Amino acid sequence: MGKVFKTQRTVRFGECDPAGVVYYPVYFDWFHQTMETWFEEALEISYAEVIKKYGFPAVETSASYRAPVFMGEVVDVLLSLKKLGKSSVRFQMVVMGAEQKVRTIGMVQTVCIPIQEGKFQFQSSNLPDELRNKMALYVEEPSSNP
Amino acid sequence: MGKVFKTQRTVRFGECDPAGVVYYPVYFDWFHQTMETWFEEALEISYAEVIKKYGFPAVETSASYRAPVFMGEVVDVLLSLKKLGKSSVRFQMVVMGAEQKVRTIGMVQTVCIPIQEGKFQFQSSNLPDELRNKMALYVEEPSSNP
Amino acid sequence: MGKVFKTQRTVRFGECDPAGVVYYPVYFDWFHQTMETWFEEALEISYAEVIKKYGFPAVETSASYRAPVFMGEVVDVLLSLKKLGKSSVRFQMVVMGAEQKVRTIGMVQTVCIPIQEGKFQFQSSNLPDELRNKMALYVEEPSSNP
Amino acid sequence: MGKVFKTQRTVRFGECDPAGVVYYPVYFDWFHQTMETWFEEALEISYAEVIKKYGFPAVETSASYRAPVFMGEVVDVLLSLKKLGKSSVRFQMVVMGAEQKVRTIGMVQTVCIPIQEGKFQFQSSNLPDELRNKMALYVEEPSSNP
Repeated sequence: MGKVFKTQRTVRFGECDPAGVVYYPVYFDWFHQTMETWFEEALEISYAEVIKKYGFPAVETSASYRAPVFMGEVVDVLLSLKKLGKSSVRFQMVVMGAEQKVRTIGMVQTVCIPIQEGKFQFQSSNLPDELRNKMALYVEEPSSNP
Repeated sequence: MGKVFKTQRTVRFGECDPAGVVYYPVYFDWFHQTMETWFEEALEISYAEVIKKYGFPAVETSASYRAPVFMGEVVDVLLSLKKLGKSSVRFQMVVMGAEQKVRTIGMVQTVCIPIQEGKFQFQSSNLPDELRNKMALYVEEPSSNP
Repeated sequence: MGKVFKTQRTVRFGECDPAGVVYYPVYFDWFHQTMETWFEEALEISYAEVIKKYGFPAVETSASYRAPVFMGEVVDVLLSLKKLGKSSVRFQMVVMGAEQKVRTIGMVQTVCIPIQEGKFQFQSSNLPDELRNKMALYVEEPSSNP
Repeated sequence: MGKVFKTQRTVRFGECDPAGVVYYPVYFDWFHQTMETWFEEALEISYAEVIKKYGFPAVETSASYRAPVFMGEVVDVLLSLKKLGKSSVRFQMVVMGAEQKVRTIGMVQTVCIPIQEGKFQFQSSNLPDELRNKMALYVEEPSSNP
């Protein structure tokens, strides 16, 4: 069983559209912010520090919106890893309402790329071991087969 | 063969992140904006007019980012329909660089909901025929089988 | 001496532009978010609850950017009131770096408007006493003259 | 009499908040976008090209919101220069409704900074003559006194 990282947020006025609910692109911003917080609080390295050497651009994303999230609600965003590859990290992101029902479930597949002198090199690179080992704790159901 | 609706945009400074490329949640904002423009220019009804009666919240989205889009680039966003259901509309969105290669390909599945006196009712509703008939022209490869 | 309300935030990747610093419109989003948090934590009423009856649109804003704020920095946003009118609230917002120097100082003048059945009425309305009394604690240098 | 540069935009769903009007930080994003378009269309140099050498961070901004702008409205954003200094450019930005009344009037004071190898140097630099000469046409009421 992998660990799950959780952050809480209060839905802000500017994140909502005229329907009074979270504008759907905003969820992806939440996913990125949650990843940044996870680096800081779970992996214990600030994202600003990370991107001195490595970037994590998204290569695939998806989201399934099961129920809207309204202005002012307090929700949890839960992060776990579906897969940890040599150079890729596949996140699962779940937005959970206070009633403990899934509102939105998303996926973000990122790939590790090198950053040299502030320039992002858009080609995949192996995850450094120090990050990889810490990340591994968050992989869901690690393969039970040897 | 269905029609394809095309809009062009210049990538703005504020749409880009410290990597100098479009921040990935922004693509979904582009997809929504392109849908709005399509209502106006292709279906000939302003989105503001549409949402007096009907809303189109996303229920599923996905995107595959094949190559980054850089600050200042001029790109096309191409909209077509993968499926037109009784109450749902599944869009395909393609972001194409000036070199005519796909940079990002996305999907947005929306569902039609009624709006009454400015209140969005989050339950699906049949698409009105007037919209449906106009939309039908944009469905990709309409089923040739009976 | 009025009270000062303080929130802390870590600067997120998506809040920054290709210069690697906070994109200037984002500060105003921070100001609004800080006002929302102030309602919740200082006035002890959620902003979602507030806007069932009253809205606080901005009528004047300004900001002076003295030094950039970089991706990943932890900053404080300090809220105080420059003036509390019959129907208006003038906020001062200060973004302070960890080194305790002002990076950005801003002003947001809002006016209280009534909201009826979810519709914002764009005409000023007297602040209700219950809010006004709580807000008064945050007015800078309350007039010393009777 | 200086020239005035005009762009038109249709207000998008995602630019509006639960009040159904443009969220106030968004106006500043419009101001920046209008400046970018002005570089391209009026000064005939893409902003992407500009920022290979020079950046224009804001040092002071303000806005006065006289009337809200609603979802779906078509508005003009008018750019002119209040002042052109050795290293600074002070823009006036006016958001005008279709009825030709000012909805929002804003100011953005920027300062020219050098960019070297992709790194923004946050210290003012003289405006290059080639830009300055083109910009000068947009200065409002150039001083009539010698």
